[in-house]
Amino acid sequence: MGIVVSLDGDRGRKPSLDPLSELVAEDLKAVNELIVQRMDSPVELIPQLAGHIIAAGGKRLRPMLTLASARMCGYSGTRHVALAACVEFLHTATLLHDDVVDESDLRRGLASANTLWGNKASVLVGDFLFSRSFELMVEDGSLEMLGILSNASAVIAEGEVMQLITANDTETSETAYLEVIQSKTAQLFAAACKIGAVVAERPRIEEEALDSFGMNLGIAFQMIDDVLDYSAKQATLGKSIGDDFKEGKMSLPVILSFRRGDDEDRAFWRRTVEDLDQNEGDFEHALHLMEKHTALEDSVERARHYGAIARDALGLFSDRAEKSAFNELIDFCIERAY
Amino acid sequence: MGIVVSLDGDRGRKPSLDPLSELVAEDLKAVNELIVQRMDSPVELIPQLAGHIIAAGGKRLRPMLTLASARMCGYSGTRHVALAACVEFLHTATLLHDDVVDESDLRRGLASANTLWGNKASVLVGDFLFSRSFELMVEDGSLEMLGILSNASAVIAEGEVMQLITANDTETSETAYLEVIQSKTAQLFAAACKIGAVVAERPRIEEEALDSFGMNLGIAFQMIDDVLDYSAKQATLGKSIGDDFKEGKMSLPVILSFRRGDDEDRAFWRRTVEDLDQNEGDFEHALHLMEKHTALEDSVERARHYGAIARDALGLFSDRAEKSAFNELIDFCIERAY
Repeated sequence: MGIVVSLDGDRGRKPSLDPLSELVAEDLKAVNELIVQRMDSPVELIPQLAGHIIAAGGKRLRPMLTLASARMCGYSGTRHVALAACVEFLHTATLLHDDVVDESDLRRGLASANTLWGNKASVLVGDFLFSRSFELMVEDGSLEMLGILSNASAVIAEGEVMQLITANDTETSETAYLEVIQSKTAQLFAAACKIGAVVAERPRIEEEALDSFGMNLGIAFQMIDDVLDYSAKQATLGKSIGDDFKEGKMSLPVILSFRRGDDEDRAFWRRTVEDLDQNEGDFEHALHLMEKHTALEDSVERARHYGAIARDALGLFSDRAEKSAFNELIDFCIERAY
Repeated sequence: MGIVVSLDGDRGRKPSLDPLSELVAEDLKAVNELIVQRMDSPVELIPQLAGHIIAAGGKRLRPMLTLASARMCGYSGTRHVALAACVEFLHTATLLHDDVVDESDLRRGLASANTLWGNKASVLVGDFLFSRSFELMVEDGSLEMLGILSNASAVIAEGEVMQLITANDTETSETAYLEVIQSKTAQLFAAACKIGAVVAERPRIEEEALDSFGMNLGIAFQMIDDVLDYSAKQATLGKSIGDDFKEGKMSLPVILSFRRGDDEDRAFWRRTVEDLDQNEGDFEHALHLMEKHTALEDSVERARHYGAIARDALGLFSDRAEKSAFNELIDFCIERAY
């Protein structure tokens, strides 16, 4: 099945998004154009607000997953462009609603939409993007795609509600945490990848392999994101460090620190995370406890586990540039913790 | 084309929803069962919160429109039940997001969901219901239905954003007001009716007739709703009177009073509605100005105009119990102002 060449590449180089970005650059440009076109509305506030959050842009990771998955599956048509735009619209709608929910002040290093325009506008423009996403899917015309993405949407919303319930609850288990991030983050990664196989009309085993790749990559990605909230320099991450702590989010580093701590430690977490009774120096003490219990390192270790599953999920695809870029993406998602 | 009988019925009787409710009672029971089944989730807060708002229930006007439209078009299948549930889910999602947006304290006479569970949960459970609605549409399997309803969703969101922009702006014109209520309310009425013709596979002229019936009925309905916010007894309406005034909503009675008023009147509206600088007695003064300028009566008069268009839109359907119930529904929507 083709010549097997080692595509691991320069082992010394820091893993990056670049190979993936370069592979899909042309397609992604088309996605961006479609996004700008479809977020338009005579109601000016809509393109203004949507444009703000979409242009701030982030990495466009999810649409890139769709584009590269389709190409890896040998797809040579153009439907994947609109489908990738659907995925990004769904993601942006979620972000807008998430910003309202979390009352976060920063998103990707810029003021978040709700700070600039208010919660009301963020909720409604989120709804608009959500609807636009479904309009685009309808235009694509595949009920299978619509099924995958509407189901992903429902699961994401369920995950967000779960997260809301577990927030400030120090009794949240690692299992519950895993369920939350699987739903609220990894489900869309999984759907984004799977539709690449579906649009290429590949057999079910490849659909499932890409679904699993996306799911496990998404879990690892979110775990590292949660680690970064306690370790990243704000400048590199583009979001406020310590936000999760301030909100009392029960992310993996907190769960591990709480469970590994003594009574005094647990009293600290209950006061700060459960009662949100936080004083100066508390965040530093939280970091100290995490260090004491190697909570950040071990969270990264857990992420590596899911990264490994994601890598194996790609095993049945023949070696192509996209596969290699996906493998580097897994490394990138994990290594950015350092 | 069948025997034409007068179905206008007891002219002396106060128009009510009863004939419509009785006609679709059986089907509506199936819709309610499907709704309960599909709002379920292992995340308990979801059925709790969704159940609260759906059970509070309101009149189920929109799903009844779908059910009766389908029957009026001679449809004898069962797809209209799930489609009616889709419509109600979309409506409920909008209500949940609307409650967050308006910071209203009462919805249908019960505490609103956001008061009980917080804004966060309302936004997310709204998203869940929205997604569930699309999942149901996908199961129905018609891309045409999906197109109608996803488009309606986008227009509703646009209308909500427009309303947000015009709030507190005393310069809002009657035309702008009309555009808002057409989008945020009437569009879903129109879609709910139209899909009845689509599911029955009726010719385009009937689809369009039902679309127009729903659109104009929806406009009349919202206009009266806005009148009721200045005239209804809280007990009969099941919502707080004066909410729109408190929020500075530029509804038709305010627009008419502002435009017909003198400088002193306008200064009053600017202070109370634009600056939201409201004191005791201001609401009563607002009512006084509306009386002076017959703003409420004339808003009802405007609603009658749209009611008349809705009635004529039904003209090309042969006389059936559903048509008669729809005609009474138009009267009911307008007469409830008294």
